Amino acid sequence: MSKKIPTRLYLAEDEMPKNWFNLRACMAQKPDPILHPGTLKPAVAEDLYPVFCKECVKQELDDTTLLIPIPEGLQEFYRAYRPAPLIRAYFLEKALGTPAEIYYKFEGTNTSGSHKLNSAAAQAYYAKEEGLTSLTTETGAGQWGSAMAMACAFFGLDLKVYMVKVSSQQKPYRRALIETYGAHLIPSPSDTTESGRAILAQNPETGGSLGCAISEAIETAVKTDKCRYVLGSVLNHVLLHQSVIGQETKLAMDKYGVKPDIIIGCAGGGSNLGGLIAPFMSDKLAGKSKTRFIAVEPASCPSFTRGRYAYDFGDTAKTTPLLRMYTLGSGYIPSANHAGGLRYHGMNSTLSKLYKDGYLEARSVVQTDVFDAAVRFAKIEGILPAPESSHAIKAAIDEALECKKTGEKKTILFGLTGTGYFDMSAYISYNDKTMSDAVPTDAELAKGFAGIPDIPANK
Amino acid sequence: MSKKIPTRLYLAEDEMPKNWFNLRACMAQKPDPILHPGTLKPAVAEDLYPVFCKECVKQELDDTTLLIPIPEGLQEFYRAYRPAPLIRAYFLEKALGTPAEIYYKFEGTNTSGSHKLNSAAAQAYYAKEEGLTSLTTETGAGQWGSAMAMACAFFGLDLKVYMVKVSSQQKPYRRALIETYGAHLIPSPSDTTESGRAILAQNPETGGSLGCAISEAIETAVKTDKCRYVLGSVLNHVLLHQSVIGQETKLAMDKYGVKPDIIIGCAGGGSNLGGLIAPFMSDKLAGKSKTRFIAVEPASCPSFTRGRYAYDFGDTAKTTPLLRMYTLGSGYIPSANHAGGLRYHGMNSTLSKLYKDGYLEARSVVQTDVFDAAVRFAKIEGILPAPESSHAIKAAIDEALECKKTGEKKTILFGLTGTGYFDMSAYISYNDKTMSDAVPTDAELAKGFAGIPDIPANK
Repeated sequence: MSKKIPTRLYLAEDEMPKNWFNLRACMAQKPDPILHPGTLKPAVAEDLYPVFCKECVKQELDDTTLLIPIPEGLQEFYRAYRPAPLIRAYFLEKALGTPAEIYYKFEGTNTSGSHKLNSAAAQAYYAKEEGLTSLTTETGAGQWGSAMAMACAFFGLDLKVYMVKVSSQQKPYRRALIETYGAHLIPSPSDTTESGRAILAQNPETGGSLGCAISEAIETAVKTDKCRYVLGSVLNHVLLHQSVIGQETKLAMDKYGVKPDIIIGCAGGGSNLGGLIAPFMSDKLAGKSKTRFIAVEPASCPSFTRGRYAYDFGDTAKTTPLLRMYTLGSGYIPSANHAGGLRYHGMNSTLSKLYKDGYLEARSVVQTDVFDAAVRFAKIEGILPAPESSHAIKAAIDEALECKKTGEKKTILFGLTGTGYFDMSAYISYNDKTMSDAVPTDAELAKGFAGIPDIPANK
Repeated sequence: MSKKIPTRLYLAEDEMPKNWFNLRACMAQKPDPILHPGTLKPAVAEDLYPVFCKECVKQELDDTTLLIPIPEGLQEFYRAYRPAPLIRAYFLEKALGTPAEIYYKFEGTNTSGSHKLNSAAAQAYYAKEEGLTSLTTETGAGQWGSAMAMACAFFGLDLKVYMVKVSSQQKPYRRALIETYGAHLIPSPSDTTESGRAILAQNPETGGSLGCAISEAIETAVKTDKCRYVLGSVLNHVLLHQSVIGQETKLAMDKYGVKPDIIIGCAGGGSNLGGLIAPFMSDKLAGKSKTRFIAVEPASCPSFTRGRYAYDFGDTAKTTPLLRMYTLGSGYIPSANHAGGLRYHGMNSTLSKLYKDGYLEARSVVQTDVFDAAVRFAKIEGILPAPESSHAIKAAIDEALECKKTGEKKTILFGLTGTGYFDMSAYISYNDKTMSDAVPTDAELAKGFAGIPDIPANK
C-alpha cells in the first residue's frame, strides 16, 4: 500500500493474460441458454456453425470452463498494442477535490480506437485457423468495423462491413479508416441482401440500424463459401475475449494493493463492461468482496433501466437464435444518438442475469450530461474520450463528487473504452449547443416491446 | 543482449528524464547565432522578450549548458502521457524479410496525436509561471495547435491559434478538436492583423501558409498585454524540449544493450528529428559511435536537399530575427501537400549546421511513395501513421530492404511522431488515387531564393 502508485500502470509483457476468464463458470445461477428460434429448444453447436467460427461457438456455449487458453499466435498480436495502461486519475481527483481514488483502464491506444480490437483479433485468428477466407460484420459508430478491418488485414482475411447508413454518411473518415485497412464497406440497408431489400421496400428513407446491418451481414456470411459472421458485442464469447481488460486491471491493482469499491462501465451490448468486471465479479460471487458494479447506458436506449427481461432476437430480421436478455425489442430503433456504439436494443445475457439477480446496478444518463463530463475530462486528463466511454466518465465523476459530500475515500475504477477522434461531429454539435437529449416515451418503448416474440419462455 | 526484447518497451515513470539535453552544448562548431534583423548583430535576450517567454529565450540562446532541469510541475504533466513506448517492429521485420532490427519511438499516444505536446506543455508551463495570461500561435496540419490547446487548457491560459486557412477548411475535425479544448481558432490570413490584411490585399484568394500564420500570431502577441507567442518547431528551445524523446529512447535501448546503426526522422522544422537524435548525436560528435542520421523531407518542400544555407526570416512578413538555416526563402509557398506539418520553408539552425558539417544526411521522398509505406505499415504494425511520420517510415523500410539485399543485420531506429486520425482526407485521396506528387521546378525554387535577405552574412 505504501508503494507510490505511478500515473500510468503498465504490466510487463510477460504478465499479460495467457487465458481468457469465463465469468459464467463462477456463476451458481447461470444465464439462460440460447434457444433455437424454430424449435425453441436450447441451441447446440451445430445450430450455430453455419453463422460463426467453430471455436467461437464452443466458447459461446461453454459456461463451466473458467480459464480458456489464448492461442500463442493471438497473444503475439495482442503484444502489438497491449498491455493497455491502467491510469490513476490524479489530475481528475485534484480537480474534483474528492477524497476518492479514481482509476481507469484505457483501451483507446490502438488505431481502431477502442477495446473492440481484443475480440476482433480473436475472431479473425480463429477464422484463419479454421481455413475460412472471408468474414462479414456490421458496424454502427465504426469502432468495431475499424477493429475488424485491422484484424483481417493482419491475419489476411477478406472482410465485408455493413455500416449503418446514417453512420457511414455522418462519418466519412471512419469509413475511410476501415477502407484504408482494406475492408469492403457497404452502407446498410443495402440492395445486396434479401433482408436489406425487404427493409428498403418498407422504408426507403431509413438511415438503418445495428439490428438491420446484423441481418445483412449474417445473410451474406451464410450464403458465401468459407465465410462466417462476426459480432462485436452482446454474445458471451465476445465478453470472454474482453476479459483481458479485467484481468490486466486486476493484476495491476493487486500489485499495488488496490481494491476497487465501485467499478463502472458503459453498456451497449455489454462487451466492455463484461470484460472489465469479470475477475472482480468472480470475487463478489464468491463472497470475497463487496464491490459495487454499475452499468451506464444512454437514456435514449435504456435496455437495462427500462427494458424487459425476455427471450428476444439479436437482429431486426429476426434470424438469430433467441437470447434471454434485457431488451427494448429487436425492432426498436433508437433516436439519433451520437453514442452510436450504445444504440443496441439488447444486452448480453450474462450481464442481464447478473442485473436480474442484483449483482449489477444500472443507470441511464442523457447525452449533454455525458458530453459535459467528456469535455471536462479531456481538459483535465488530456484524453478526448469516445462518446460511449464518456457515459462511464459521467458516472465516475458523480460517484467521486458523492464521496466529496460524504467524505468517504472510496476507490473508483472505470473503463475508458476508447477515444473520440472519429466522433468530432458529435463534439461539434455539443460545442454548437445543437445536441439533443431526446428520451423515448413509454409509448415509443411499447412499440418496441410489442415485437418481442410471444413464446412460452416469455410468459 | 540475451534479454528477450518486448514488443513495447516502456520505461518506468521514475526513469523519465529529469533534464533536457542540450545538443548544442556538445558541438565544437556551434550553430551560427540568431541575428537582430535591424542591426544584423547577434540577438540578445532583450530583443526576444517582447515575443517569447523569458525562460524560452534563455534556453534559445544557451548553447553551452548540457543539462537543463525540467521543472517538477512540468514533469508531473508529462506523466499524464509519457513515457512513450519504444516499439520493436517485429511484425514489420518479418513482413519485409529483412535481417535488420527495426525500432520506432511512438509519440502518438496522446490526444494531440504527436510529439508536439512535449514542447507545447513546456511553453505553456513557463508562460503560466511568468504570470502571462494568454498565448498565440499558428498551426498548419493542426498537430501543434491541438497540442497547444491541450496544454493551455491544462495550465489555464487563453490561446489564439492562427490556422493556415486551407488546413482549417480541409480539416474541420482538427479545428473542432482545438476548439473543444477551449482555444480560439482564426483561419489565416485573417483581417484581425495588419500582416494578415496586407497578405489578403495582395492575394485575396490565398489559402495561407505557415509563414503567414506566424506573422499574424506574432503581431497579436506583441500587441496584447500579458501575452506571448509560441512556436512548435524550428527554434532551438523547441528541440531542447523534444530531447525527452531521444533520452527515453536511448535509456530504453541501453537497458537492452541495443545500439542503433541508423536513426531516421521526418524533418519539417526539425523538432522531432532534433529531439530524437540529441543524445545519440552527442556520442557521434564525441567519436563514440558511427551511427548514421537521416533526415527525410517531402520532395515538395525540400529545404535540406535543395535549399540554400543562409540567414533568413522565419515568417512571410519578415518580422522575426534572422536564423542561419537551410531555407527555400520565407516567401516560398509549397504546393498543396497533405503532410502539412512538413510544409515549412526553413530548417532548425542546429540541424542545419550538423548537415552542413556532414554529421547528418538528408533525402526527399514523393508523397505517394510515402503513403504506400504508410498503408503498408498500418496493416502490418497496426498503427495508422501521420503523413509527416510516414516520411520516416518510408526511409526505414528502404534501409531495411537494403539490408535484405546485402544481408547486413543493422539496427534501424526511426521516430514515429504521430497518428493520422485527423488526416483521413489525405488517406482518401491516396485510396482514390487522386494524390499528386508535385515537385517544385528550379524556377519555382528560384523565386523563393530571391526573397532571402541580401545581407553581408549571406554573401
